Amino acid sequence: MKDIQSQLDHRRINIKKVGVKDITYPIMLLDKAKKLQRTVANFNMYVNLPHRFKGTHMSRFVEILNQYHGEIDIKNFRLILEEMKDRLDAQSAHMEIEFPYFLKQVPTHANAIGLGEYRCKMHAVLDEEYKLVMEITVPIAPSLTAQESEGLPRSPGHWGNAIISLQCLNFIWIEDVIMMVEEVVGQNHLHGEDEQQVSFSGGPLQAGRKLLSVEKIVKALGSRFTANDDILCFSITVENLAEGYKTFATLDWPEAGQCN
Amino acid sequence: MKDIQSQLDHRRINIKKVGVKDITYPIMLLDKAKKLQRTVANFNMYVNLPHRFKGTHMSRFVEILNQYHGEIDIKNFRLILEEMKDRLDAQSAHMEIEFPYFLKQVPTHANAIGLGEYRCKMHAVLDEEYKLVMEITVPIAPSLTAQESEGLPRSPGHWGNAIISLQCLNFIWIEDVIMMVEEVVGQNHLHGEDEQQVSFSGGPLQAGRKLLSVEKIVKALGSRFTANDDILCFSITVENLAEGYKTFATLDWPEAGQCN
Amino acid sequence: MKDIQSQLDHRRINIKKVGVKDITYPIMLLDKAKKLQRTVANFNMYVNLPHRFKGTHMSRFVEILNQYHGEIDIKNFRLILEEMKDRLDAQSAHMEIEFPYFLKQVPTHANAIGLGEYRCKMHAVLDEEYKLVMEITVPIAPSLTAQESEGLPRSPGHWGNAIISLQCLNFIWIEDVIMMVEEVVGQNHLHGEDEQQVSFSGGPLQAGRKLLSVEKIVKALGSRFTANDDILCFSITVENLAEGYKTFATLDWPEAGQCN
Amino acid sequence: MKDIQSQLDHRRINIKKVGVKDITYPIMLLDKAKKLQRTVANFNMYVNLPHRFKGTHMSRFVEILNQYHGEIDIKNFRLILEEMKDRLDAQSAHMEIEFPYFLKQVPTHANAIGLGEYRCKMHAVLDEEYKLVMEITVPIAPSLTAQESEGLPRSPGHWGNAIISLQCLNFIWIEDVIMMVEEVVGQNHLHGEDEQQVSFSGGPLQAGRKLLSVEKIVKALGSRFTANDDILCFSITVENLAEGYKTFATLDWPEAGQCN
Repeated sequence: MKDIQSQLDHRRINIKKVGVKDITYPIMLLDKAKKLQRTVANFNMYVNLPHRFKGTHMSRFVEILNQYHGEIDIKNFRLILEEMKDRLDAQSAHMEIEFPYFLKQVPTHANAIGLGEYRCKMHAVLDEEYKLVMEITVPIAPSLTAQESEGLPRSPGHWGNAIISLQCLNFIWIEDVIMMVEEVVGQNHLHGEDEQQVSFSGGPLQAGRKLLSVEKIVKALGSRFTANDDILCFSITVENLAEGYKTFATLDWPEAGQCN
Repeated sequence: MKDIQSQLDHRRINIKKVGVKDITYPIMLLDKAKKLQRTVANFNMYVNLPHRFKGTHMSRFVEILNQYHGEIDIKNFRLILEEMKDRLDAQSAHMEIEFPYFLKQVPTHANAIGLGEYRCKMHAVLDEEYKLVMEITVPIAPSLTAQESEGLPRSPGHWGNAIISLQCLNFIWIEDVIMMVEEVVGQNHLHGEDEQQVSFSGGPLQAGRKLLSVEKIVKALGSRFTANDDILCFSITVENLAEGYKTFATLDWPEAGQCN
Repeated sequence: MKDIQSQLDHRRINIKKVGVKDITYPIMLLDKAKKLQRTVANFNMYVNLPHRFKGTHMSRFVEILNQYHGEIDIKNFRLILEEMKDRLDAQSAHMEIEFPYFLKQVPTHANAIGLGEYRCKMHAVLDEEYKLVMEITVPIAPSLTAQESEGLPRSPGHWGNAIISLQCLNFIWIEDVIMMVEEVVGQNHLHGEDEQQVSFSGGPLQAGRKLLSVEKIVKALGSRFTANDDILCFSITVENLAEGYKTFATLDWPEAGQCN
Repeated sequence: MKDIQSQLDHRRINIKKVGVKDITYPIMLLDKAKKLQRTVANFNMYVNLPHRFKGTHMSRFVEILNQYHGEIDIKNFRLILEEMKDRLDAQSAHMEIEFPYFLKQVPTHANAIGLGEYRCKMHAVLDEEYKLVMEITVPIAPSLTAQESEGLPRSPGHWGNAIISLQCLNFIWIEDVIMMVEEVVGQNHLHGEDEQQVSFSGGPLQAGRKLLSVEKIVKALGSRFTANDDILCFSITVENLAEGYKTFATLDWPEAGQCN
């Protein structure tokens, strides 16, 4: 015991992060159609390298959260982080949220629900600068062509997902990320702004069905996302459900970087 | 307060069940190939209508569990229930367990894992009599014929499951339940004992692909299970994953009965 | 094969229920403070004993859902069920939803979040009559008295939950169910309408700490809920988290009945 | 479309990792008492920067897995990774597994289950060298002293967990990591080899109850783990469940490093 006790006094190992997590809280955010969307998020809030941190200060996270009266507006993220950094005297402040985002869809077949659910995560950091990394999971079903879907049973099952994690120079709508995925994969749930001009018949991946593998799709998505100059970095994973497991492929851009 | 306090004294509402739940514990069970299978189960143990139940007796559930030295053999279920019923002076004793069961499979294509995972639940009750209800989830993929699978991408996704809940007069192997499902749906993962004689080319559902819907499959499975005289009652649900939801159909036999 | 095939033709086993499940969808409901609360629910919709049911009709569930433009108002439940029953020519229609419900709380200590999350389930059935069963999970922490909480560390952990399932003659607010639990358990998060008059110092269970066991709490809650004449039936489970498992006790009222 | 198509040809973005995930598979491992423990794991297997990777090669992961006949021995990890690296012509091969590990415990009170469950993760990498990072979640309940536990109800609830992630020079038993946590936190579930000599009455954290906070505990654990010269790096998180959220503190050692 003696050894351990003395270490408690003499060794200085600093706490790297401290905070609260797994808080369920309603949030609101503006969607691209300028409508206020209200959904429910899971929150983590923490600070890095707090100086002179005292245990009793844990309540400050809760106090900051309580100022928002039960509803956080995503526009206030930076303000919340500034307050966390300031009141906890920290080098950096983090907020991670995860929530379902809903979008009206153009039903592509009789059984399609006219409302798509997209799981989103956001990780906002305030350091010297403010940084926001978004992750959006877009369900994809690249194996269905119109022709096949007639002969097939009601549903071909759940094919898989494209999981897009990215950081932008300015701002990107969740809707635009989903649209970029659908352009490549060949689904056409969302109306584009310039839908008259777009005349692709299913996206680059629908030409031949033999192309369809997680590797092909992740590369095609990688090409599409590098074409957007506002995107600073991204990480894309495509996963395909098989019986009893998933296959997946991931690519990062820039290759040396890390965007999550 | 006065009203509530007096109710505490005068109203007699008996506790219906009391026990412990969500215990993770290793189990072993014999499989049809006479090999001992070890897996990990989630346990609930409770009694109905305990007489003169005192709070301090909750430890008896744990004592009974601790007698098994970290590994329960499914053969001992009835013994465990007898001890629960006896030591807790109860009208009936219940044990519910849920576990993954593994079976070697004949791979049906290059990417098939040679080991199938089947989620199982067992609910054992000792009342005047001993009763065991089993539930087995069998993944099904009825949309793939050999022909199609060549042209299709690596995986058609996860189609869905057949969930079979049943009670038998004597005993039934988990393997036999899975085989009955595969006979109907047309997969052929497991070797039957008399596999030379069985020459079906895909089961009754593979004749035409237009047949494939949760309603058709659940009816075909219902017919198959009524053909087994040892099965006292069953409930079958077939579920098909679609994009964003599941469709399902359930049937019970006998219709008035309840088997779960 | 021959046997199975003939069974397909001759045996008549009716499908008991058919429908869609695991749909995530935004909902709105009025809270007791007359404010519209928007949250996100998981949906199941199904019908019992559909006559002349054809597979192609599965799309009708989705069509009905799509009429609500991405947001269901709980006031419309009965209308939705009527439409399901009618369009699917069924004997009964069911809707099950599960969602987090949020309530502003009076913080009882420095680290309390001023917003409580309560998991709710509703099961609405339209048969000859309309029936609604509600289930509300109320986190409880009966082991803390003001005195103790000073000496204790920041949090005593998560003690457990009271899970209240009930059916009412008329209508009951979710808030009122939570308040009834808090009255008994001795927490005082929500302001009652007549809070000046209520002067209990912690509810009937706080008098002595030795009372605290799942059995005692479930009995005290049972007494409280039988005192409300508007409640037709209820089932209450109290669960306490221990290291590696939960202990629980359940009571039903009336004893012979079933309310879930 | 033209732009996208040309990008498909000209841009070269390499896939970073490719593989299979979420496979459930039985494993066996030797515990410190030299007994073979069989449990069930969730597997991910993938390679980094595969050269000339073709889609059809995804089946190789499954082939490698199938060689183990439904049971992987942890001693073979390195062999499996060598085979993955070799057959997929990759720069590095990864295997991640997650499983419950069971240990017989000395019951510390009447309701204690004599078998503890510890969630473990292992991430094995074969690059130029072989590297294994282990993560072990140890449930902790530092708020109970013998004295208190008498007056308290059956259970004080679930206090929280210490999550230890570490990499060793040689080898460390899971049992030893758990024992190091229990020494500090003051629980005494496992018998040490030299238990006669150890005479601590509850570990350094039990002296006064005011010490108990996630920050204090994580620092005390940090000191304990730096004292073991065989540990190359570690990351420790202590989390405490509160009503509706968790508080947590994390430290890494060495501070600049990353060990997960």
